[in-house]
Amino acid sequence: MSESIIYLDNAATSWPKPPSVQEAMETCMREAAANPGRGSHRMAVQASRVLFEGRKQLAKLFRIANPNDIAFTLNTTHSLNTALQGWLKPGDHVITTALEHNSIRRPLEALRRKIGIQITYAESNSLGVLDAGAIEREIRPNTTLIAVTHSSNLLGTITPVGEIGQIARRRGVKLLVDAAQSAGVLDIDVEAMGIDMLAFPGHKGLMGPQGTGGLYLHPDLELEPLMHGGTGSASESPEQPSTRPDRYEAGTPNTVGIAGLTEGVKFVLDQTPAQIHRRELELTRKLMEGLSEINGVTLLGPGIHTERTAIVSYLLDNVDPAAVAFQLDRQYGIAVRAGFHCTPLGHQTIGTTDTGAVRASPGYFTTESDIVSLIDATRELVLAHGKSHRL
Amino acid sequence: MSESIIYLDNAATSWPKPPSVQEAMETCMREAAANPGRGSHRMAVQASRVLFEGRKQLAKLFRIANPNDIAFTLNTTHSLNTALQGWLKPGDHVITTALEHNSIRRPLEALRRKIGIQITYAESNSLGVLDAGAIEREIRPNTTLIAVTHSSNLLGTITPVGEIGQIARRRGVKLLVDAAQSAGVLDIDVEAMGIDMLAFPGHKGLMGPQGTGGLYLHPDLELEPLMHGGTGSASESPEQPSTRPDRYEAGTPNTVGIAGLTEGVKFVLDQTPAQIHRRELELTRKLMEGLSEINGVTLLGPGIHTERTAIVSYLLDNVDPAAVAFQLDRQYGIAVRAGFHCTPLGHQTIGTTDTGAVRASPGYFTTESDIVSLIDATRELVLAHGKSHRL
Repeated sequence: MSESIIYLDNAATSWPKPPSVQEAMETCMREAAANPGRGSHRMAVQASRVLFEGRKQLAKLFRIANPNDIAFTLNTTHSLNTALQGWLKPGDHVITTALEHNSIRRPLEALRRKIGIQITYAESNSLGVLDAGAIEREIRPNTTLIAVTHSSNLLGTITPVGEIGQIARRRGVKLLVDAAQSAGVLDIDVEAMGIDMLAFPGHKGLMGPQGTGGLYLHPDLELEPLMHGGTGSASESPEQPSTRPDRYEAGTPNTVGIAGLTEGVKFVLDQTPAQIHRRELELTRKLMEGLSEINGVTLLGPGIHTERTAIVSYLLDNVDPAAVAFQLDRQYGIAVRAGFHCTPLGHQTIGTTDTGAVRASPGYFTTESDIVSLIDATRELVLAHGKSHRL
Repeated sequence: MSESIIYLDNAATSWPKPPSVQEAMETCMREAAANPGRGSHRMAVQASRVLFEGRKQLAKLFRIANPNDIAFTLNTTHSLNTALQGWLKPGDHVITTALEHNSIRRPLEALRRKIGIQITYAESNSLGVLDAGAIEREIRPNTTLIAVTHSSNLLGTITPVGEIGQIARRRGVKLLVDAAQSAGVLDIDVEAMGIDMLAFPGHKGLMGPQGTGGLYLHPDLELEPLMHGGTGSASESPEQPSTRPDRYEAGTPNTVGIAGLTEGVKFVLDQTPAQIHRRELELTRKLMEGLSEINGVTLLGPGIHTERTAIVSYLLDNVDPAAVAFQLDRQYGIAVRAGFHCTPLGHQTIGTTDTGAVRASPGYFTTESDIVSLIDATRELVLAHGKSHRL
């Protein structure tokens, strides 16, 4: 099935993965898939090493001094819930943006309902470009957190995280960054950028398998853990230990997945995020150029010269995005995504609340010819629609 | 490294896995590792099918009418935290047992501290055998939950879940079962046994990879989700949808791991839990018999004729269990576990709070010769210790 697919849904999950990822997972299943940190026998020790090697590579990528400040999670959503539920207290005010994914919005709205917090959704301009000043203006005496996505999963726009980090430090507010679309692609330096908490997926830009993600926590922070349970440490205590990463990693981790993720991160470090980003941006601009020349296609978000991640959302005049995605798949073997992309306020911002959008997201392994195929297919769909007046 | 290991730590993670598990994971990585439920293209659809097939097999195993009443999780701890934090309200009383793993005890103690619940730890007899009456006697007007392990991870003793389920139904209390040591081995029929919530691991008796687990929720229950976030459904709503399994599966699931787990469950269904249990019990009894003949070894828990899961905990006179486990690994290539096994109250019950214990846990792929090796090695260690007066 996958032989002939043109995969342009990398913002959901990157595919394919570097071959070393799958190889590492296979080796781990054969040789090291015991329960890490819960036994002294060699397989358990080997499993612990797999985890530590993963933390080390991630620490290198994000310039984190102590690898144990990274906890592994199921996915970015797990990381964000740990951060938000663990940090925010009744009466706290949090500033976030209208570009957030539901993985920030829904936990915040649940906290508003359950414990009573205040939320401000800072607005970007109508192209989805956010200004750091828009965040700073919203700071109140009870603001304890700024929670922002590093890059919009709808528009690819990039949040000025470094600038916001400086504001946060100056004003004594913590900064949580959702790196779902940026980890592995944009430069992330937690110290230099003033990031207190960094939530990232394993299965997107870091090229690892699904079922992996992580949360970096600044050493000064201590959160109430989201999950309590066995850690293989301080077993006699009824409380979660304060030792990291144990405190935030209750239960058996996904050792095999993390073995794969580690290889993904090594691949990213070898290629460098800068080169990966350059390559993806080239493909993205080629796609935007081609689509913009088609009469009847509207590109969403900022123009071609604005820096962005590899996400292109667009509309066809009078054609439901879901129909576009469906026909691209069935007729052309092209995988894109249609819908609301879990970011309802993002659609409000750009005025596509009623329609959603088609989203194409190239990856590092996408070819020029894949891009041409999508442009050609879109042109044909526009023409077909023009003739039939419905798709 | 793994070639020569005698692996007797299956209660932590089963190993090896049936070959079909790894094969399914490899195929999934190659062909279906898109983001399930978040796109209409064929790879996303295929990923959704992987998840649904997993739910179907699990539903068959646990006699669950609707596969969508099963949510996938990172591990049993994640499942138990979802159940406990989602169900218990301030002022509620919960009955659990002194045999629980920290994955039940720690979330309960955290809830006591955070929202104010009452907890009763029902006691078993000094061999770790629990009577259903000991649970029933503790029911109060504000008891809303009974949370019990199906089998002690320290002693292998089996909780009379069916009987407790009848009591729970009769008294209008919900029943949560921790099947960490029983799923795939003991018969579980959620309806017949009156189980309202069933938490289970993917990587133990179900023979799947780490990073997988699940939670069954009776259709009448609606919990506050532990995590909120994107579900690929009802994207426009700021609230987690009520649809199952979406409500309890925020963020990208571990599709590849679940592909492996599905094959593990199929293997279990083919062999049948009854046959797996019979085989494991045979090995367990052989081990108990051999160890009981060694002067200087004390077996913990109930005697050889009591039904149990494949867990044997024991002590060597005057020798630290950690030293035993270490030497078994280094000198004999035998993997067992020493320590407290995340069950401090269990150790109180049987009087081993100061020492912990050595735990050997055979699995379905353990051979008679593995068992003989452990018995022989233990005998040699006892002799060596007798001579040197320290190990």
